[in-house]
Amino acid sequence: MAKLDAPALAQLFTEARTRNGWKTDPLPESLLRELYDLVKFGPTAANSTPARFVFVTSPDAKARLAALSSGSNGPKILQAPATVIIGYDLDFPETLDKLFPHAPGAKNWFGDPVAKEWGAFRNSSLQGGYFILAARALGLDVGAMSGFDNAGVDAEFFAGTNIKSNFIASIGYGTDDGLFPRSPRLDFEEAAQIV
Amino acid sequence: MAKLDAPALAQLFTEARTRNGWKTDPLPESLLRELYDLVKFGPTAANSTPARFVFVTSPDAKARLAALSSGSNGPKILQAPATVIIGYDLDFPETLDKLFPHAPGAKNWFGDPVAKEWGAFRNSSLQGGYFILAARALGLDVGAMSGFDNAGVDAEFFAGTNIKSNFIASIGYGTDDGLFPRSPRLDFEEAAQIV
Repeated sequence: MAKLDAPALAQLFTEARTRNGWKTDPLPESLLRELYDLVKFGPTAANSTPARFVFVTSPDAKARLAALSSGSNGPKILQAPATVIIGYDLDFPETLDKLFPHAPGAKNWFGDPVAKEWGAFRNSSLQGGYFILAARALGLDVGAMSGFDNAGVDAEFFAGTNIKSNFIASIGYGTDDGLFPRSPRLDFEEAAQIV
Repeated sequence: MAKLDAPALAQLFTEARTRNGWKTDPLPESLLRELYDLVKFGPTAANSTPARFVFVTSPDAKARLAALSSGSNGPKILQAPATVIIGYDLDFPETLDKLFPHAPGAKNWFGDPVAKEWGAFRNSSLQGGYFILAARALGLDVGAMSGFDNAGVDAEFFAGTNIKSNFIASIGYGTDDGLFPRSPRLDFEEAAQIV
């Protein structure tokens, strides 16, 4: 495979920015489904794909989510055409007979409650990374947020399940309103080494 | 922004596969640095970028990592030109004065040990997702693995620091040796909803 061209790398990584202001036009449902159909292919441990996605798009659902969010996040949720709750399903081992058919009994690898919770949290976060980059690959902007009442969101959006919220992310077409200057990054030598 | 073209989406998501066999030619250091220079731009909470990357490329380091890995992972580590240990630095709050300069005191948001650990684990996993897709964007194949002795790897590669291993991933140019058939994925209705 070849390296993607510079405009694609800029769109995904080097020029992409976390947006705080949004155009309000709705996103078509077909685009949300196209987004999921990219995200689902990202690799996870034992193909467990424990992330669950709630696309919050209606005025009522936006208001319920905004009321559970901190600081400046509420107004962003109300303005963006969609904000996605990325959760993780602690019952994911039950899906492994379908998702990892060549290893019968794979669900027993996650029998320990701590292994199950860490597996769900790690792999749903990985899938959160795929989600952010898949949205950018489709030409969308993203604004991820962790400032919200997790227990409140779980009760409001995941009642009667073992799904827990991980983080939330607005998607749509961003404006420059409230855009931060690009923050510094760690140099290679601060974050990496070759041994 | 426009949607990336179909070959790019295939390279990143729909046709990419987790590789188990590798061509053994070394990867140039410039490519490893180019990879980091994409990954570092992925968004994280408070721009905290807690992931740390050890590129294991020398025969000695590969042997040390392989000896701490489970089952079939050891031979893959010995064959691949590089396997990367993706860790998370529990001391990441100390970097926030540099990384998030518009919010002095941001490091106090992570003062609670549980908040710090979950923040480091969540955001380093997110960065793991960016890492996997950035490698694919550069034309590399990836084989991520979680089957290894985390405490042993921490002692061997992160001694004297507060960095903990999250997962490992071989990178290089894959072969079809040991390639699994593509496993099923959850349908939209099984993993997502629009409210």
